[in-house]
Amino acid sequence: MQSFDVVVVGAGPGGEVAAGKLAEAGLSVAVVEGDKVGGECSFYACIPSKALLRPGELLEEVRHVPGAAEAVTGGLDVAAVLGRRDELIGHLDDSGQVPWLTDRGVTLVRGWGRLVGERQVAVGDEVLEARRAVILAGGTRAALPDIEGIDAVAPWTNREATTAERVPASLIIVGAGVVGSEMAQAYVSLGARVTLVAGRRVLPKEEDFAGEQVAARLVEQGVDVRLGQRPTAARRDASGVTVTLGDGSTVSADELLVATGRTPQAVDLGLEVVGVKPEGYVEVDAHMRVPGQDWLYVIGDLNGRALFTHMAKYQAAIASGEILGRPMVADHLADGPGSPRVIFTSPQVAAVGHTMASAGRAGLRVRVVDVGTEANAGGSYSGGGAGTARFLVDEDRQVLVGVTVTGTAVAEFLQAATVAIVGEVPVTRLRHAIPSFPTRSELWLYFFNEYGI
Amino acid sequence: MQSFDVVVVGAGPGGEVAAGKLAEAGLSVAVVEGDKVGGECSFYACIPSKALLRPGELLEEVRHVPGAAEAVTGGLDVAAVLGRRDELIGHLDDSGQVPWLTDRGVTLVRGWGRLVGERQVAVGDEVLEARRAVILAGGTRAALPDIEGIDAVAPWTNREATTAERVPASLIIVGAGVVGSEMAQAYVSLGARVTLVAGRRVLPKEEDFAGEQVAARLVEQGVDVRLGQRPTAARRDASGVTVTLGDGSTVSADELLVATGRTPQAVDLGLEVVGVKPEGYVEVDAHMRVPGQDWLYVIGDLNGRALFTHMAKYQAAIASGEILGRPMVADHLADGPGSPRVIFTSPQVAAVGHTMASAGRAGLRVRVVDVGTEANAGGSYSGGGAGTARFLVDEDRQVLVGVTVTGTAVAEFLQAATVAIVGEVPVTRLRHAIPSFPTRSELWLYFFNEYGI
Repeated sequence: MQSFDVVVVGAGPGGEVAAGKLAEAGLSVAVVEGDKVGGECSFYACIPSKALLRPGELLEEVRHVPGAAEAVTGGLDVAAVLGRRDELIGHLDDSGQVPWLTDRGVTLVRGWGRLVGERQVAVGDEVLEARRAVILAGGTRAALPDIEGIDAVAPWTNREATTAERVPASLIIVGAGVVGSEMAQAYVSLGARVTLVAGRRVLPKEEDFAGEQVAARLVEQGVDVRLGQRPTAARRDASGVTVTLGDGSTVSADELLVATGRTPQAVDLGLEVVGVKPEGYVEVDAHMRVPGQDWLYVIGDLNGRALFTHMAKYQAAIASGEILGRPMVADHLADGPGSPRVIFTSPQVAAVGHTMASAGRAGLRVRVVDVGTEANAGGSYSGGGAGTARFLVDEDRQVLVGVTVTGTAVAEFLQAATVAIVGEVPVTRLRHAIPSFPTRSELWLYFFNEYGI
Repeated sequence: MQSFDVVVVGAGPGGEVAAGKLAEAGLSVAVVEGDKVGGECSFYACIPSKALLRPGELLEEVRHVPGAAEAVTGGLDVAAVLGRRDELIGHLDDSGQVPWLTDRGVTLVRGWGRLVGERQVAVGDEVLEARRAVILAGGTRAALPDIEGIDAVAPWTNREATTAERVPASLIIVGAGVVGSEMAQAYVSLGARVTLVAGRRVLPKEEDFAGEQVAARLVEQGVDVRLGQRPTAARRDASGVTVTLGDGSTVSADELLVATGRTPQAVDLGLEVVGVKPEGYVEVDAHMRVPGQDWLYVIGDLNGRALFTHMAKYQAAIASGEILGRPMVADHLADGPGSPRVIFTSPQVAAVGHTMASAGRAGLRVRVVDVGTEANAGGSYSGGGAGTARFLVDEDRQVLVGVTVTGTAVAEFLQAATVAIVGEVPVTRLRHAIPSFPTRSELWLYFFNEYGI
């Protein structure tokens, strides 16, 4: 039986960061990985999706800037887009990611890790002992929706959509959350005919205007957007996949992508050993510990707090800090459902903290200020399309509690909002944080003016 | 004699905003302008310079993104760049700017405004009485350097450089501050042969690495950069302008741009009336008032506190707030020399608060953390070039006191740093402001890691 200070199960972003931080601090660490070091994010999610979207986004921007637009005579080079995507995901080989761990002295154990007792993880026939702690970072996988015949059609999930070697002539996407919306735009820009089938709204977790703007853009790009529809059955024949919708109509395409959410990979992790049923997300406290088990941490998607790579890494810092006697707890609002989040659609959607809906549910008395993302001098020459910036001020505490920005290239706008929210900077103080002229960050100045400070 | 609550002299960004805010609050306001409503910024500085730079910047970015790069077959369309610039500066006609004032009920008086007594401003033969206050917002103009024969060669200043109707085949630029550096890159990208003559460093007020990176890029772009040189004489003949340098060498070109600083437009403002000599910048207190004259405010470039449009607008809010009985004072570090500032060179330079040099002069005990702007997942697919992000932490107070970021499209990164500095958010708290993956804002995460929080 090999023995380590800490055994980490799962080498996605959370597991990697936790293992790395612990090893850097001098602990002996094993990380167990049954698939790829780097996890879903590096190979099948964040990275390839951005690789597919970025070229189209940039060409769209350049076409709006006279003087540069004239230099663009062609469209996207699909082979080059896919080729660059392949490079960025290391051609689905994780050997480029392993040195980050091994350079830090982490022992990589290939195989499926499973709790078999207190501080004991089995990998095949071998048992690894964890003298101090076990960290489970098992992640999530795509959830398959309840559609008759869905298994038989072998639908695409995020994995196939982000790694496809060719662009199908036509694609049906079920679900208009982050994956569905991003992939609809990626594939339509790469030349596919795309049908997007979704419930009431596009991007249902975000502010209404965000989903409305993305939906309008999808339509403009030629996507057949079918809202308020529920697929009831799917079948595949020689010509492709046919999906029957709730109203009895059908849509057909070469491929079907299901993007209706995630499900935790909690099965076969041995959670029963600590009396946790392997169903749904694993509950943890603010230190990322399973209540009652001071040696067992669960970080990343698997605890269901915030299904984002950056939050997995944050939780990795919390768990490893706790193990190293440098406690830090998840705190300051921009965590859980209010975590910072960027959706790389056109327009991009960047949000942190509350939406109007979640502020309402939380019983906050908020004042809402909307300004145009591009309605300033910075917007006049940059090449972006229209967008909206919404600020939610908690009127009882006079601090920001939520910001959503839509528009071209707004991803990097978010950090300012996150600092303001996490720092609980009073709005009268925030007013002295002057955005430079002529940047599009002047949306902050327009917020100050509109709010009357 | 016409009478108003407030008379504003100068309708640049500061004067416009002050007049607008006061009029919106119900006061009767006159604004006196002897040139163009909108000021230097709108016609001869911020706006046209960005119009000249943005197309080249965007083409450079797109050329780094495979899949999109292939669509670019041409270079900049110079006529289209200049045409778009002309649109953005309203073809040097300010009629597009006037309605912003008149819609708010501000009376626009065309002519040169001059103090002729307490609360009295003369415009030609007419005298305007200000019942409450006078705000001087006279701005600055380009300073001509002490070079023998400089007047006779009729050099370009920022005005000619930003509004030129054709691109000269060759251009000498003296001065490598913001104007000189930006215009060198704009003109070389538009096809001119550019020689940049400057003192010890490029961008001497910023962190060393910023100027070094911009200098390296200038050389790469084909600019003949001559540092450590002082021009001593200039003459023009039929073939163009020849400048003699301190080492006796000469450079010749079609045109000469002098970009060696600004000088306040304090002459002929009647400052003698209040006992202020019309030499240099006009000193004001934290309320933007001339000491001892509770009715007289000086805002914008003219007071020399921070020669930026955004700071002029900030000062306009302070002065108008004071007049309206809603006092707000300039505060919280990111003011004066530490004001937020963005230089739209390649790489861009965005800075707020202290540099290492200014922190040293201020006697602060700072810890310096440098990270790569693009050394994160966001940098891998975005198309940016290399850059550096420097964080200065005041070790006594454990707050950020300065941030400088260089790189492609980093202008919008600045606001997060400004909020952190103005909000004096402790770094241990700041650590919970998690940048989204995969954005380039993860440079914050690398700062946290490097700093050890």
